[in-house]
Amino acid sequence: IIVDAIFGIGLNRPPADWVKRIIADLNTSDAFTLAVDIPSGLFMERAVEDREAVIQADYVLSFQSPKLVFFLPETGVFLNQWEVLDIGLDRTFLSQTETDFGLVGKNEVLAGYRPRPKFSHKGTYGHALVIGGSYGKMGAVVLAAQAALKAGSGLVSTYVPQCGYTIVQTAFPEGMTLTDTGERKLTDIDYALEPQGVGIGIGMGTDKATVNAFSNFLSKNKTPMVIDADAINILAKNKALLKEMPKGTVLTPHPKELQRLIGSWKDDFGKLKKARSFSKKYDCVLVIKGAHTLIVYQGKGYINVTGNPGMATAGSGDVLTGILTGLMAQGYPPLQATIFGVYLHGRAGDIQVEHTGYQALTASVIIEGIGPAFLDLFAPPEKQEVVANKEE
Amino acid sequence: IIVDAIFGIGLNRPPADWVKRIIADLNTSDAFTLAVDIPSGLFMERAVEDREAVIQADYVLSFQSPKLVFFLPETGVFLNQWEVLDIGLDRTFLSQTETDFGLVGKNEVLAGYRPRPKFSHKGTYGHALVIGGSYGKMGAVVLAAQAALKAGSGLVSTYVPQCGYTIVQTAFPEGMTLTDTGERKLTDIDYALEPQGVGIGIGMGTDKATVNAFSNFLSKNKTPMVIDADAINILAKNKALLKEMPKGTVLTPHPKELQRLIGSWKDDFGKLKKARSFSKKYDCVLVIKGAHTLIVYQGKGYINVTGNPGMATAGSGDVLTGILTGLMAQGYPPLQATIFGVYLHGRAGDIQVEHTGYQALTASVIIEGIGPAFLDLFAPPEKQEVVANKEE
Amino acid sequence: IIVDAIFGIGLNRPPADWVKRIIADLNTSDAFTLAVDIPSGLFMERAVEDREAVIQADYVLSFQSPKLVFFLPETGVFLNQWEVLDIGLDRTFLSQTETDFGLVGKNEVLAGYRPRPKFSHKGTYGHALVIGGSYGKMGAVVLAAQAALKAGSGLVSTYVPQCGYTIVQTAFPEGMTLTDTGERKLTDIDYALEPQGVGIGIGMGTDKATVNAFSNFLSKNKTPMVIDADAINILAKNKALLKEMPKGTVLTPHPKELQRLIGSWKDDFGKLKKARSFSKKYDCVLVIKGAHTLIVYQGKGYINVTGNPGMATAGSGDVLTGILTGLMAQGYPPLQATIFGVYLHGRAGDIQVEHTGYQALTASVIIEGIGPAFLDLFAPPEKQEVVANKEE
Amino acid sequence: IIVDAIFGIGLNRPPADWVKRIIADLNTSDAFTLAVDIPSGLFMERAVEDREAVIQADYVLSFQSPKLVFFLPETGVFLNQWEVLDIGLDRTFLSQTETDFGLVGKNEVLAGYRPRPKFSHKGTYGHALVIGGSYGKMGAVVLAAQAALKAGSGLVSTYVPQCGYTIVQTAFPEGMTLTDTGERKLTDIDYALEPQGVGIGIGMGTDKATVNAFSNFLSKNKTPMVIDADAINILAKNKALLKEMPKGTVLTPHPKELQRLIGSWKDDFGKLKKARSFSKKYDCVLVIKGAHTLIVYQGKGYINVTGNPGMATAGSGDVLTGILTGLMAQGYPPLQATIFGVYLHGRAGDIQVEHTGYQALTASVIIEGIGPAFLDLFAPPEKQEVVANKEE
Repeated sequence: IIVDAIFGIGLNRPPADWVKRIIADLNTSDAFTLAVDIPSGLFMERAVEDREAVIQADYVLSFQSPKLVFFLPETGVFLNQWEVLDIGLDRTFLSQTETDFGLVGKNEVLAGYRPRPKFSHKGTYGHALVIGGSYGKMGAVVLAAQAALKAGSGLVSTYVPQCGYTIVQTAFPEGMTLTDTGERKLTDIDYALEPQGVGIGIGMGTDKATVNAFSNFLSKNKTPMVIDADAINILAKNKALLKEMPKGTVLTPHPKELQRLIGSWKDDFGKLKKARSFSKKYDCVLVIKGAHTLIVYQGKGYINVTGNPGMATAGSGDVLTGILTGLMAQGYPPLQATIFGVYLHGRAGDIQVEHTGYQALTASVIIEGIGPAFLDLFAPPEKQEVVANKEE
Repeated sequence: IIVDAIFGIGLNRPPADWVKRIIADLNTSDAFTLAVDIPSGLFMERAVEDREAVIQADYVLSFQSPKLVFFLPETGVFLNQWEVLDIGLDRTFLSQTETDFGLVGKNEVLAGYRPRPKFSHKGTYGHALVIGGSYGKMGAVVLAAQAALKAGSGLVSTYVPQCGYTIVQTAFPEGMTLTDTGERKLTDIDYALEPQGVGIGIGMGTDKATVNAFSNFLSKNKTPMVIDADAINILAKNKALLKEMPKGTVLTPHPKELQRLIGSWKDDFGKLKKARSFSKKYDCVLVIKGAHTLIVYQGKGYINVTGNPGMATAGSGDVLTGILTGLMAQGYPPLQATIFGVYLHGRAGDIQVEHTGYQALTASVIIEGIGPAFLDLFAPPEKQEVVANKEE
Repeated sequence: IIVDAIFGIGLNRPPADWVKRIIADLNTSDAFTLAVDIPSGLFMERAVEDREAVIQADYVLSFQSPKLVFFLPETGVFLNQWEVLDIGLDRTFLSQTETDFGLVGKNEVLAGYRPRPKFSHKGTYGHALVIGGSYGKMGAVVLAAQAALKAGSGLVSTYVPQCGYTIVQTAFPEGMTLTDTGERKLTDIDYALEPQGVGIGIGMGTDKATVNAFSNFLSKNKTPMVIDADAINILAKNKALLKEMPKGTVLTPHPKELQRLIGSWKDDFGKLKKARSFSKKYDCVLVIKGAHTLIVYQGKGYINVTGNPGMATAGSGDVLTGILTGLMAQGYPPLQATIFGVYLHGRAGDIQVEHTGYQALTASVIIEGIGPAFLDLFAPPEKQEVVANKEE
Repeated sequence: IIVDAIFGIGLNRPPADWVKRIIADLNTSDAFTLAVDIPSGLFMERAVEDREAVIQADYVLSFQSPKLVFFLPETGVFLNQWEVLDIGLDRTFLSQTETDFGLVGKNEVLAGYRPRPKFSHKGTYGHALVIGGSYGKMGAVVLAAQAALKAGSGLVSTYVPQCGYTIVQTAFPEGMTLTDTGERKLTDIDYALEPQGVGIGIGMGTDKATVNAFSNFLSKNKTPMVIDADAINILAKNKALLKEMPKGTVLTPHPKELQRLIGSWKDDFGKLKKARSFSKKYDCVLVIKGAHTLIVYQGKGYINVTGNPGMATAGSGDVLTGILTGLMAQGYPPLQATIFGVYLHGRAGDIQVEHTGYQALTASVIIEGIGPAFLDLFAPPEKQEVVANKEE
């Protein structure tokens, strides 16, 4: 067992050559490596420049609070497991040194939870509308609509090209289906409903007619929105459209879509900086999906603690979009809806993966976990567990 | 803890100004408020005029029997939880002062239950027909048909526009599908079947051709009927049709549909009065859907005790219509079918919500609860529980 | 409690007037009536002429073996519950007096069970073909095909009109779908497959073109067959076709179809006589569906003990047809397949009804019970239970 | 009880006439036959010539390691149950006499398992493409696609004729559907995706246009492939195409397809010899499906220990093809993917058969067992059990 506790290193200096040689030796050794506070070579507020010069820790005992770098993909990989010890630092000092990033767990989510009064009715819980689909990509709409309903939306409708009619009506009996004039793609997004939340973009494609339809829709829509998938790609190629988004619009790009949207970055810290700046500029909630999904809004960041590698599966993002749309339809403000929805989505996956393992966790199975994830909110708290970054 | 026991107030006088100021203070206080018999400011037989002058009670210990106002939306909201104590009033006196409204629980339902003899066959349990659907709204028919079958109907058929053919046949293999001559809407409701119960109106739309088809159908149909959704809207706009309904027809409007049907009301008591008068005039069973669904027929009211806020979800009403149609097809008289069906629907939701939470309780999930709700009828009785009007 | 033990009466004489008056009085009494051996007024080998002159027994303690009349609809209704006591009659005598009707329970079924050798493959278990369906009645084919597969057939294909294509392919991914040249009905039953078992008639209709198609099919088909539903109706109207059936063809009429096939009867005993004569004449296995399904072949009758009133539900018969077809495809001879299949079908329903109650037991749910019914064959035996003829 | 321990016989000589007569007598006896090491008359390295001259053993206690003949269909049938005893042979000697065939169990599979790192995403787990289907045979594609997803592939798409569009999109919402220009069959396999694993051939038919399409596809495809069903039949008739397969292509023929591919064989040993030679010649992984599926590659054989006779059911092979495609998409090399996939497929069936029995184990049910089979990999090991070759 090796104990890595070369304190000063972690803070801001790259290690000296002789230290780097020691680190390289340790990393090739078979010994169990225990890092104290933070693995040597990692910085608390900067990216790693020399990845050879960081201890690959089997276990990290960290002090007082977890560090941002534990949650970022480029640096999180240096920790296999970690745990935080309360070492009794002065709490007043801590609250003054609060960073811009907060962890989102069950307590944070419960604070914003809206209980259901008895004398409520279907209308109390809003109307969610999922707009998307194109020839061969109708399943995404089905998954998002099912998720919006399971997230508690009173009504859920779908707006799809005509080739999706029988598919969506068969697979989603609870919802109305509206069809575009286009047979195989959206060409004119126009409806008489008054939804309280709109999710748009999944499976939609980026055909020119669809770009026009989306553009026209953006210019007139006032309903709170979640924008995902191809609608993000359209925005990325037509940046002028970004200004048409209602304040508080939620964007849920996956890594490549994010890059198209905000441009390339040098490292995780660069990505965060660009994301915060983008979010401020367009007054939008930006969801950076990943092992620890990060939500950025109004200069603050919210790190989600739920989820697992089994959720890297087709349609998982469509389910998230559906959950967020369903919560917004119920009246949750965009940021609260996003924080809550990202948490629920991950928790649903965590509950279901116990029955399926990582590989067999599918989007449909995650949807079935949404109910249990709601119930879990009010279950007695489990004791805090060690966070594992690697499948054992 | 505050004890609200200003007895006289609850009966018939609005509280004096100084009492009202006390009430306002109490309601803004964080203290736990326990009301005795009835919260001060609520009346037993009248609506509340000044909502500022009513105690918002955390808990009500009521005497002998619950009050009608506990179950009505405008007044039920003043009670978070309540419980009834037997204080030994003279039972003869009680039976003479019986009100026009009775509670419907398991005992009331069991009294009318029709057991299944061993030497029965499919025909013994009747043929239910669900008529409805239009382009984009076929799921409602699927849900109602599934519910009618689960409610015990021997056969269940559907009558839909042609655009529903593949959808309904795929999702509901147990039933026959009859199609209208209309492609996207009902235009001529005509069939050779002889059902024992008809449910009509769900997802049907109010196109002029459909109005005509419904009107012609009403003029010739003699089968016991449940009328719901758009068929109610058509009746509301064509009051002359109301006289064509067979005696004992069941109408299941949601609040807005009810208003279109019987006109606006000043308060819950006004609504009840109008509903009773409407029900008498047209000899129909009127179902006032809500947290406590209220059934009105022949001058009497029946208050259902099952159900929960999770049932405020898309398609939940279609499931109710299906259950009622399925029970009527089995030969339950309209009132008994309605009392039983409303109870079962709520109980199915109560059983399922334990597994899903309020938000993820969907219409399809309620349907799966119908079987367990039947089994529950014969399960050993649970002890009476406190009634919670608010999610904890 | 009344004990009915007027022994002599049960055997062959109608009761005297004064006995009849006593019986009438007893039947209107609220007392619990216990009948010994057989309720007074029932005959062991004849139908009841005067239904007023039979004790309605709450409980029957019978001797040595149950009587045929306990299982027939007209007479079974006089027994609410019954149980058989072994009173030590000479077994040699019993075996010599064996009647033409035997009970079929788990032991009888296990005797003919064909175990699965390890080194078997898909082909070992045959190919079942379900032929049927017409516009609006495709679900029957789906249910039968699913049941045939769950009954163990290695391959299951369907043959349907073209309007069933998408429906069957979507709902039954395990099977191939062959389509007729007819759009909405079968017009020419012609295929290149070589199935080992064919189930025909469900949802098929009796259109003239279909009658021709069925007639031509009968004249050339050599595969063991189950004939059900509309195919039976066609046979009933075209008796000449009956001679075209391969030896050992299984017919599964419901009561009305049976009547069309063999003509009216005076009472249950008359029905049995006609059924046995019909079965002999055409060398076919005749299934008389009911609370206790009765199978007639080569002069013998087999009374099934499984099943419950919840199975009087749409599609339940299609499931039975599928099971029988699936067993015949596996090589079970027609009589064995029928005895086994009828038992399994009822046992599947008995297992599932525990979870659904009578009303919510649907055909799809029965299909899910087929696997557990197979497993139950090898489960430790339960002790013999009282047979209840009425829902408690 | 008979103990068969005529040691010398098993090794290489056919038994003398008087021994053969004894064997025949023993086989007709009702006594329980216990064979020691190997049933008399079986050879360790040769096929049986005279099947009358082999002891049919109820139980075999074998020494040190199981024999290849225990797993082959022609010889495995002589053992009802068997177990291996460690008799302390010199392990050095054993390792030098290692045969070309190894058993594949949980340990062998776990050695190649690829754990899921936390900071992974959908793209990490590849894109599987299932190509197949024709009019009436679309279900095979649905089953394979579902299985590929459950096996852990990040994305799963399907490529089908146009008549499969609504079917696949409805039944498989997680995946994209690409359609061929052909309405009822594949005529031109052409797509813009870049999958990491392709499964091809299921339900595809062997129409001339499809043969051309497949041939053209083979000549340009570089993606690792699983070839099954009709694609194997096409290869068998067009041997020149075999050279177009990428190295390491996996072929999964059932017995008849295997024969068409490699020609007839005299006995199981002849089959193995031809299979190894074929596999070497075309550098492909050859899967010989059976009770113990045998995988042949680069001169070695791998005998799978999971699976049961219930898996001889329609679509079971499509599920295997899907699993293999899904594993290859995740980056498992062809041989490892095949060994792992064959094991998982059998284990999924073994887990599910506990709930369904052999007969009701269907392909859809096997798919639901894939998740539990993954979880089972990491469950505490069960003690080695007796292997049963016959259903008890």
